[in-house]
Order: sequence, then C-alpha cells, then structure tokens
Amino acid sequence: MTTSHHHPLDAALALASTAAGQYTGHTSPAYWNMVGPFGGATAATLLQAVMQHPERLGEPLSLTVNYAGALAEGPFTLQATPVRTNRSTQHWTLSILQPGADGAPVVTTTATAVTAARRETWSAADTPMPAVPAPAQCAPIPPAFPVEWLRRYEMRPVSGTLPKAWDGSGDSSLSQLWMRDAPVRPLDFCALAAMADIFFPRVWLRRARQVPAGTVSITVYFHAGSALLAETGTGYLLGQARAQEFRNGFFDQSAQLWNEAGHLLATSHQIVYYKE
Amino acid sequence: MTTSHHHPLDAALALASTAAGQYTGHTSPAYWNMVGPFGGATAATLLQAVMQHPERLGEPLSLTVNYAGALAEGPFTLQATPVRTNRSTQHWTLSILQPGADGAPVVTTTATAVTAARRETWSAADTPMPAVPAPAQCAPIPPAFPVEWLRRYEMRPVSGTLPKAWDGSGDSSLSQLWMRDAPVRPLDFCALAAMADIFFPRVWLRRARQVPAGTVSITVYFHAGSALLAETGTGYLLGQARAQEFRNGFFDQSAQLWNEAGHLLATSHQIVYYKE
Repeated sequence: MTTSHHHPLDAALALASTAAGQYTGHTSPAYWNMVGPFGGATAATLLQAVMQHPERLGEPLSLTVNYAGALAEGPFTLQATPVRTNRSTQHWTLSILQPGADGAPVVTTTATAVTAARRETWSAADTPMPAVPAPAQCAPIPPAFPVEWLRRYEMRPVSGTLPKAWDGSGDSSLSQLWMRDAPVRPLDFCALAAMADIFFPRVWLRRARQVPAGTVSITVYFHAGSALLAETGTGYLLGQARAQEFRNGFFDQSAQLWNEAGHLLATSHQIVYYKE
Repeated sequence: MTTSHHHPLDAALALASTAAGQYTGHTSPAYWNMVGPFGGATAATLLQAVMQHPERLGEPLSLTVNYAGALAEGPFTLQATPVRTNRSTQHWTLSILQPGADGAPVVTTTATAVTAARRETWSAADTPMPAVPAPAQCAPIPPAFPVEWLRRYEMRPVSGTLPKAWDGSGDSSLSQLWMRDAPVRPLDFCALAAMADIFFPRVWLRRARQVPAGTVSITVYFHAGSALLAETGTGYLLGQARAQEFRNGFFDQSAQLWNEAGHLLATSHQIVYYKE
C-alpha cells in the first residue's frame, strides 16, 4: 500500500538528513496545538527519524518522549543516535533542538527508543477490547476546541467525552473512542505513536474543570509488528484512557489502542502536569 | 531518621563525583542477579546520580531506564546531565558506561528523568489499594532462586506467587505482595525506584513456564513527595503487577505500589523480552 505524500501527517514528518542521525524538519501548521505542536506529532517525528535511519535494526518496541519545552513554529534539528545494537534489540537516544533567545541551540525534547527484531513466539492477549458499539454506530464529533490538530483525526467517542459543563461534577477519568487519521491514511508506527497521545488530559474529565495541563513525558509500547499494522490499514482504532492518581500538580494516564479486529496494537502511559 | 551507611542499598548506590554530572560507581554483589545487577538497583543508581547532582531542581517525577546490555561486575561510569531546567520541571539524560572488549567505553544503560518542584493542588486517588490481608497475616517467603538480590527484600506474597509446577497451566499474570528492604531502611526515592522492578517476569506466571526473560525498558512515575515517603518510613509497600499483552517475544507489565496507609506512591510500566 502506498502512503500518499500529500497526507498532512507525511508532510509533518518530512525530515531532511544532513548527516548520519542528523535531521532537519519544520513544525507543521496542520498539527498545531495551542502553544506548540500536538505532542503526538512530535513523538511521531522522533520515531520517523529512527525509521529513516540507515542503521536501524528491526521495528519499534518502545518510545519515551520527554517534552522539555514547547517547540516554536519553525525549523528544528533532530538527532537520533543508535547508542547500542544487540543481536535483537537496538537502543536509541534522541533530541530535538531549536535556536534559543540568544541563537544557541536549546533542547526542546528528549527521547529514547528501542527497536527490535521480533520472532514468532507463544503469545497471549490479556487485555480484551471492551465490548463497545461499532464505529458506524458512534457519531463523529467536531473538534472540541479551535485547534488545528483536532481536525486531523476522525473521533467517534464511545464514552467519557468532554464534560458538557465545567461544573466540577466529574467522577471518572475513563474515555473510549474510535479514531483514525483524517483524511484516512494506512496505519504505520509513526501514526500509531501519534494516536497514543490523542486523549485529552484526564484531569479535565475527572474534575469537570478545564485547568491548564500538558504532557511532561509519554511512553508507548508497540505490541504490533508491521504486518498487523498493514492488516489494520485505514480501519479505526479503539482507544481507551484513564488516570490512576492525581497528586500535587501531576497525574498519570494509561491508554490502550486496539484495531477493529480486537488486536491490541499499543499501550501507552504518560505523566501530565496540571495546575491548581 | 538517619539512613545507615551500612545498609547494602546505600553501599550499592555509593557514587563518587569526578566532575559535574560525572560519577564513578561499582556494581554491588549484594544486588547481583543472574548475569548482572538487579535492574531495580541499576534504576536506583541512575536516580541517585540525579539526587546527588548540585543543580537538581525538585524531586523525582518520572524515570525511564533502558537496559541496553548487562553490566559486568566491576566499576562503571555514570553521566547525568540536566539538559533543560524550567520553572517547575527539569529534564535529565543519563547513561552508564563500562569498558568494552577493546577497552573503549560501551553504553550499558540509557535513561531519562524528570524532576519537579511540586505544589499542593487538588488531588485524587483513583486507584484504591486492593483489599488484602495485612502484612503480618501474609507469610514471608524465602528467595525463590539462589540469586543474591532476592535476599535484600522481605517479600510477603498475597497472591500470584511463582507457580508450584512449571507445567504450562497458568491463566493469570496478576501478583500482589507486601515488600520492604531487608534489612529495613527508611523509604526514599531510590529505594522506591528499585522496588518498582521487584516483580518477577509476568510471563513465568501467565504460562507457568520459566522461559528466559529480561526487562528492556522500565518507566516509573513518582506520585509521592518526600514527606509521604518519610511518613511511610520502614513500613511495607503493597506491590501489584500484571501484564497486558504478550506478543512475539515481548510483553508489557504494569505495576502499582501503595504504602500501608493506602497511598499510591508510584506506578510503573515495563516492556520485557521473553524467549520461545
């Protein structure tokens, strides 16, 4: 299946390599959030550098992205280094830099990744997809906020949508929704990494109060290989997210992403800043 | 409360600083696993470098450790760099190196960490501690294997102990146990990081089959601040771990750690290699 080079995600992920592991890119207006790019797009961009690296071994297994500071609109440089290659795993360190106020490069994002050559083994799916209505039975919703990146996803909520009133009445942090790229695009590792960060901050739902919040660090574990991603194609993913603990300015948020056939493609965790 | 400098964990975490962010240490026989140190001890050592760094801001919020290769018995060097300091968060990159076969340094471990200056905010505990018998009602077990690090923890299983027979009869990956350092030691961030990795590989339980397995990457989110750790003192922690997906050589494992009063101190996730 050929990926269209006109898809906005492919445009956002376009990286030029200036030397081994050195890339230049540009923030994408199509995935702009309030004060910087959608964090999922930044995660996907880091993974894209790994995917394009000529020394890459195997497929993505884990990705941790630390959002040290908001990316400014404009160009950035990205460094991706395979610091250790074993027989079946390869360990990567990554960073994104932009010129600071004085022109010197400032780190906006750090990351580590592991790629792996997978083998067929005994396997077991121990987190069944919840029983939910099919995508066609769940109405798509328009973007809840006037930010551009929300228009890059078709979202069909099942449960746990944004509160209708910010009245402090929340009592649960669980959301489930069907999602896919808009326009549709065959699923790959980068798109999956981005979708692992699609969930709005759990604190908004749990409190029914829209306090300032932002992801500090996210980790994505990839359970799917490229064959399963290809099978998934342009189908919907069911995403589920919930928090475990809100404590003194930070909460954690766990997520699962299944394809329509019920295969768990990725699990994800993040720690999120919130105010008040 | 004074931490004894004779405690084996303090000895294992002893680092000498040779320059800003440059440390030397030595693997600890007291925390030795089968072919290298207990991964939790390595995670604690990386965090110790952050704790000792003169530029550290705030307390640990997240820690991701990637086990690129087994540490050999002997000395190592550790680099800890605060790559970006914001008003309330600080982002760290870390690595451990040992001489390779040709004498040149080889990366054995990479890590990132975030420390944060926390403020009191609205908070909510959304993962209640499961109802389990008190520590005194759960019998301590001797080390299940003749490895030294298991003797550094008092473990009182509640459920999900190692299978009595490796007969392929497993059907669940859930374990719960009370635990604390042995000998007892007042809880701090490093000890908590180590205990987040105490759980044996879920694949052994789920399959009732003891296949080779090893952690590739672990992330720990700290929900407790130092005041709550001080309150916890030398009390027991209840740890709970379970897997979500076993797929083609890798599975993920999620964990929660509460103190006896039921406060969630940390949540953790790891991706683990397994064979066959």
